[in-house]
Amino acid sequence: MSMRGLGMELRCRCIQTESQRIGRLIESLEIFPPSQHCKDTEIIATLKGTGQEICLDPNAPWVKKVIERILANRKP
Amino acid sequence: MSMRGLGMELRCRCIQTESQRIGRLIESLEIFPPSQHCKDTEIIATLKGTGQEICLDPNAPWVKKVIERILANRKP
Repeated sequence: MSMRGLGMELRCRCIQTESQRIGRLIESLEIFPPSQHCKDTEIIATLKGTGQEICLDPNAPWVKKVIERILANRKP
Repeated sequence: MSMRGLGMELRCRCIQTESQRIGRLIESLEIFPPSQHCKDTEIIATLKGTGQEICLDPNAPWVKKVIERILANRKP
């Protein structure tokens, strides 16, 4: 679940992260490094079709693997 | 250089990528996996302050390192 677009940019955007492996549903990923507004890295996935935005856990092994696949020019 | 927002979403967004190591300037990253519209993974960095959007090379070792740092909850 993401708080983007709700005027909450001065705090963390994610209040919970997706635990299921939704790699195949990912249209794109947005990654926000730690900042003065949020001490934790945040990853927001936009899903295919619906455009739904879902927060992912940067520490989850499956999330790291999905990003590695994408960087290797493969589909997530 | 990025073609985002120019109605060019049905082809690749990036026509060239940044060769300089601009990790410290990165506010956020957007990652687009290969799709039917663009066979290559594309990474668009939004820069601090200016909000300028710059395409990064997913194959550049410094880009991979920046993403690894961010995933490890460190600043880029």
